[in-house]
Amino acid sequence: MTDSSRAIDHLSCIIPAGGVGSRLWPLSRANAPKFLLDLTGSGQSLLRDTWDRLVPIVDAERIVVVTGNAHRASVIDQLPDVLEMNVVTESEPKDSSAAIGLAAALLELRDPEAIVGSFAADHVIRGPVLFERAVRQAVEAAALGYIVTIGIQPTEPSTGFGYIKMGKPFGEVASHDTYDVKKFVEKPGHSDAKKYVSSGKYLWNAGMFIAKASVLLEQMAQSQPQMVADLREIAAAWGTERSAEVRERLWPTLPKIAIDYTVAEPAAEAGRMLTVAGHFEWDDVGDFASVAKLLTRGRPSDLAVLGDRAQILSDKSSGIVVSDSDRLVALVGVEDIVVVDTPDVLLVTTKDHAQQVKSLVDRMKLAGGNHLL
Amino acid sequence: MTDSSRAIDHLSCIIPAGGVGSRLWPLSRANAPKFLLDLTGSGQSLLRDTWDRLVPIVDAERIVVVTGNAHRASVIDQLPDVLEMNVVTESEPKDSSAAIGLAAALLELRDPEAIVGSFAADHVIRGPVLFERAVRQAVEAAALGYIVTIGIQPTEPSTGFGYIKMGKPFGEVASHDTYDVKKFVEKPGHSDAKKYVSSGKYLWNAGMFIAKASVLLEQMAQSQPQMVADLREIAAAWGTERSAEVRERLWPTLPKIAIDYTVAEPAAEAGRMLTVAGHFEWDDVGDFASVAKLLTRGRPSDLAVLGDRAQILSDKSSGIVVSDSDRLVALVGVEDIVVVDTPDVLLVTTKDHAQQVKSLVDRMKLAGGNHLL
Repeated sequence: MTDSSRAIDHLSCIIPAGGVGSRLWPLSRANAPKFLLDLTGSGQSLLRDTWDRLVPIVDAERIVVVTGNAHRASVIDQLPDVLEMNVVTESEPKDSSAAIGLAAALLELRDPEAIVGSFAADHVIRGPVLFERAVRQAVEAAALGYIVTIGIQPTEPSTGFGYIKMGKPFGEVASHDTYDVKKFVEKPGHSDAKKYVSSGKYLWNAGMFIAKASVLLEQMAQSQPQMVADLREIAAAWGTERSAEVRERLWPTLPKIAIDYTVAEPAAEAGRMLTVAGHFEWDDVGDFASVAKLLTRGRPSDLAVLGDRAQILSDKSSGIVVSDSDRLVALVGVEDIVVVDTPDVLLVTTKDHAQQVKSLVDRMKLAGGNHLL
Repeated sequence: MTDSSRAIDHLSCIIPAGGVGSRLWPLSRANAPKFLLDLTGSGQSLLRDTWDRLVPIVDAERIVVVTGNAHRASVIDQLPDVLEMNVVTESEPKDSSAAIGLAAALLELRDPEAIVGSFAADHVIRGPVLFERAVRQAVEAAALGYIVTIGIQPTEPSTGFGYIKMGKPFGEVASHDTYDVKKFVEKPGHSDAKKYVSSGKYLWNAGMFIAKASVLLEQMAQSQPQMVADLREIAAAWGTERSAEVRERLWPTLPKIAIDYTVAEPAAEAGRMLTVAGHFEWDDVGDFASVAKLLTRGRPSDLAVLGDRAQILSDKSSGIVVSDSDRLVALVGVEDIVVVDTPDVLLVTTKDHAQQVKSLVDRMKLAGGNHLL
């Protein structure tokens, strides 16, 4: 299966659509999680943007979305072409190992040679042609039995992302963009980030994984054998009369653990991990400062506006206004401000404090103000 | 008429109720001018607060309100005890000389010995007993033929108010608080303001004037003889069948000029001006920074909230939130912020920029966005 035209035919995509995105509250809510929001002004949700990026690469019936029970209807509503059997629901959230692992187990049953690519439902990517090129390169390497992550060529010393240290170029495929992964590095401080970027040896870790389903599950089983056995048991019963019983018995027992720890890092240590350097624009839009940056294309003196109907009157002000209403938002002398104007909550903060919105949400959870979360 | 019990019997009060208070937009509007707002959280308008301060000193039928045609109904609604004949309306705004001059001319016709006291409808005063004491002292001096202003003992080197330079104590009445006025000083810079306050020789100019109606009009006539003749003609026709004709003919021709220039400053130069030092708390609450100061009693690290129904969630924030709705206002890491949340306009600025709200309103007027003004 080294022929690339054949490898791509085995590709299925997994879109894990979970996580509220607390740092984007009060725009994001339990019933309006980040992946259902339009954060780019495109007029459609990030989930739909993700779908639209994948359908030129794989057929719609080869795209699986893993989401919470509560969001099943919204997902189907957002993605008219998705097969209902491909909307896999979690009865409770169990982090990315379980979500991606279950989808991989299901796809492995459909095709023992399945290659799976996992792409977050709530990231922003610009440059679909470059994205597709990176995916195709990753699929070629995955077909050889490697676990591949698409990293992002960094454009600045961001301290908000993890990094991938590249090793030597990988020579078995005809690509100049595939490298061994030396190691994964957690979000660095500013001076380390500067070193990483100027060295040219680091990529941003965008959390995109491409591997044969069997290889991914086998890697996961090395540290979590029971989990993988359970996931395969749930997958085997899926769609049968035993489905509910098996899932209700096993799913709640699964550990909550990110796929970085069950797959990516151990695979890198074992020398089974490759990375493809992606040259497209990427952002995980983790908070309102990121949304502002995205909308102003990085010009910090601009005022970004998200919301078609918003009327803005700005005097010596910069930052971002998010509004879904048509009322006038007047700003005077506020720099790097963040104003999020929703029907029942108004948030005012600054780009520097954008990350701290999560603590506020956590405080509200503790205080029981849940109808606004 | 040197006997104080007789002098106070001749007192009538004038409340000029004009001016939108643009610096308090979008709380203040053309149809909700500053004097109709509750800026103290007292539950009633500043106009009503003003009225309530005066009725212990003079009977209700001796209080005249001068306001625009558009606000006549609101004024009567706010002041159930006001005589309708005492609500004097201007067909168009003509600044304080015309407004106070007309009221003085009307009161002079009712009582040739009338003493008039003019008190703005939209200032905040705390300490009614000290206020009454100052008014009574001013009335005593006014009965002697002086024009008297009640100045405010400054508590800090404010650059937002004009100052009154006191001369020697005035000896003819039994008061330690009455002084000659040496001169009026425009709003100073910070270093001058500091000098003024530390010298102990300056008071804040609160724009309160007390004088015999005849003395006030005579002083005004020295620089504006035609204006005073016209005001007396309008007053003479008031309430007769000629009233509308005379007013429509003369009022539009009157000059727009503040009473400071027609009465206070020339009277001070002529040695006819006295000041009583008031020891009560006073503020003209000219902008949201002043409102914040008033509500937090000067503690700048506090977050002031104006609006009974507002729900606030504040993390490392200070300043002021004004809200008439019950939606949640969440603040994260915004210091000295000003948030004014109204149904059709949201304003976000800082205490330092509070004065600049007026320029924004001026810009909107030019742009024709008048339905929000």
